[in-house]
Amino acid sequence: MIQRRVVLASRPVGIPQAEHFRIEEVDVPDLADGEVLVRNTFLSVDPAQRGWVNAAANYSEPVGVGEVMRALATGEVVQSRHASYQVSDRVLGFLGWQEYAVTDGSAIQRTLPDVGVPDSAWLGVLGLTGITAYVGLERIGQPKPGETVVVSTAAGSVGSAVGQLAKRAGCTTVGIAGGPAKVADCREVFGYDEAIDYRDPDFPQALARACPDGVDVYFDNTAGAISDAVHQHLNVGARVIICGTASISVWDPPPLGPRVERLLLAKRARMQGLLVFDHEDAFGEAEAALLALIQRGELAYREDVLEGLETAPDAIAGLYRGENRGKRVIRLR
Amino acid sequence: MIQRRVVLASRPVGIPQAEHFRIEEVDVPDLADGEVLVRNTFLSVDPAQRGWVNAAANYSEPVGVGEVMRALATGEVVQSRHASYQVSDRVLGFLGWQEYAVTDGSAIQRTLPDVGVPDSAWLGVLGLTGITAYVGLERIGQPKPGETVVVSTAAGSVGSAVGQLAKRAGCTTVGIAGGPAKVADCREVFGYDEAIDYRDPDFPQALARACPDGVDVYFDNTAGAISDAVHQHLNVGARVIICGTASISVWDPPPLGPRVERLLLAKRARMQGLLVFDHEDAFGEAEAALLALIQRGELAYREDVLEGLETAPDAIAGLYRGENRGKRVIRLR
Repeated sequence: MIQRRVVLASRPVGIPQAEHFRIEEVDVPDLADGEVLVRNTFLSVDPAQRGWVNAAANYSEPVGVGEVMRALATGEVVQSRHASYQVSDRVLGFLGWQEYAVTDGSAIQRTLPDVGVPDSAWLGVLGLTGITAYVGLERIGQPKPGETVVVSTAAGSVGSAVGQLAKRAGCTTVGIAGGPAKVADCREVFGYDEAIDYRDPDFPQALARACPDGVDVYFDNTAGAISDAVHQHLNVGARVIICGTASISVWDPPPLGPRVERLLLAKRARMQGLLVFDHEDAFGEAEAALLALIQRGELAYREDVLEGLETAPDAIAGLYRGENRGKRVIRLR
Repeated sequence: MIQRRVVLASRPVGIPQAEHFRIEEVDVPDLADGEVLVRNTFLSVDPAQRGWVNAAANYSEPVGVGEVMRALATGEVVQSRHASYQVSDRVLGFLGWQEYAVTDGSAIQRTLPDVGVPDSAWLGVLGLTGITAYVGLERIGQPKPGETVVVSTAAGSVGSAVGQLAKRAGCTTVGIAGGPAKVADCREVFGYDEAIDYRDPDFPQALARACPDGVDVYFDNTAGAISDAVHQHLNVGARVIICGTASISVWDPPPLGPRVERLLLAKRARMQGLLVFDHEDAFGEAEAALLALIQRGELAYREDVLEGLETAPDAIAGLYRGENRGKRVIRLR
């Protein structure tokens, strides 16, 4: 059987573009004992994939040139010589940007339960993005009722969940997003108290108006000029969760920005990087909380569904162009 | 009775220089009921005083032009119409840069106990500098045995205590200081495992050699280029205590430096500003721990004693020129 897969063609500096990937056709190998064949159904597209293909030391080994692009995906078991998996089981794991994955089980994180949500949700709001929102907010942000929580990329898959969870925690929520459609989503779909377009020339003033009591928690998905503006409003004891750096395309060398030490000192504020995998002990709690909200219809989420493997090479670059609305996934067949 | 006092003559931008102060002679007023007259013995000189005279919003109201310079001091009660204080009591408080202070008691923080240490120690190793070292390290740094702790202004009053406390906590300690005398103090007086001169052109390489296992805790008293070099070596989960910004003379506007977000994210590191007054609940514990070490001769400290009120106007600028060795105080008569 022949399958298509997306491999890393060359190593990008900064954001991987379409030309850094190549689609190739290969034989799907026969299963050895202990292996399982998964037909992938949804491939995940995540900002973190940028880090996985850059050469700079990061929190995981880089994907090698010529290797299948690392990605979470959902799929259905179509053949199994593995005791733990049966044909028609639905699974989630690092199955890669490809139509079929053969694995000894090590790539599979879990079998998906039958709880009435679409598979793609496990790549997003019930997966690492939703869990990132939950643990980042709970463990680092520690919002208290009455506080002001600002979120950048507020209509995105992580940000939209952060905003809603913070609102449920009794906070005033201010979302920052790019363009009128996302700003409207912030207000109308995700329930932010205020939503601001960072592309508006009036952005710093609008932010100041939206945060009359300052900022207690800043869930930072962008870094850069957006964050510089938010930092101006940090309150004493503020917590800044560094979750992503979407506004900066090249970090080697790091771009210059205003030094933050005096601000952190004067405000006794905290900036802390968040990697969701450091908080695996909270995954069960997070998933249960998120699933309960979704089943009750109390947590809105958007998906940005691309159709077909051929959309993959440009999909990460598209995230950084800000073209998606919600969690980006690629549906296969 | 006439006394001399140091008042703020004009508002500085950045570091206050001698010309921003003026020494004037004034009458010491007669005591009203409920007041106490203190003859100051030691005046404190602290980096934090820079923040107290700058106009920018900070963690306390700025000293007004024409007002006595705010300062901690020790003194002896020479007259009292206050029930809580007797003549010859030794006290500590915000008594200001002046020879005599009249207060209704609100400026006095405490009466000093008779435990066999000189009064000046209560302005330094047993006062806010020692307590800053203790609470910053314990509460934000949270050092674990075997970790590497790097300290900037390592031979200073805060830094030297941090280094010794970290060593006692089982850490490898690396001190950064300016000039051979302070570097020698780091090694010989304060027991750092390694000490590095940031003025050495080889500083970044020397730092790398001194931290072969990376940096787990960075007690940052300088910000700036020294910190940029240390940041290169942060380990996963590192904690950076922002305690001072001695290497930066003007913060309005903040100078540019490498943006830290990607680093904090990749290393899941934390940077947090420390103001000792946020941790008053730990002062008792800190003082008891520091006093016990001093009484056993297990905590070395240096004092830099200036003689006479006329040394005060240039004393803060001198701190930022790096001319002091140890906690700077001014002895009166």
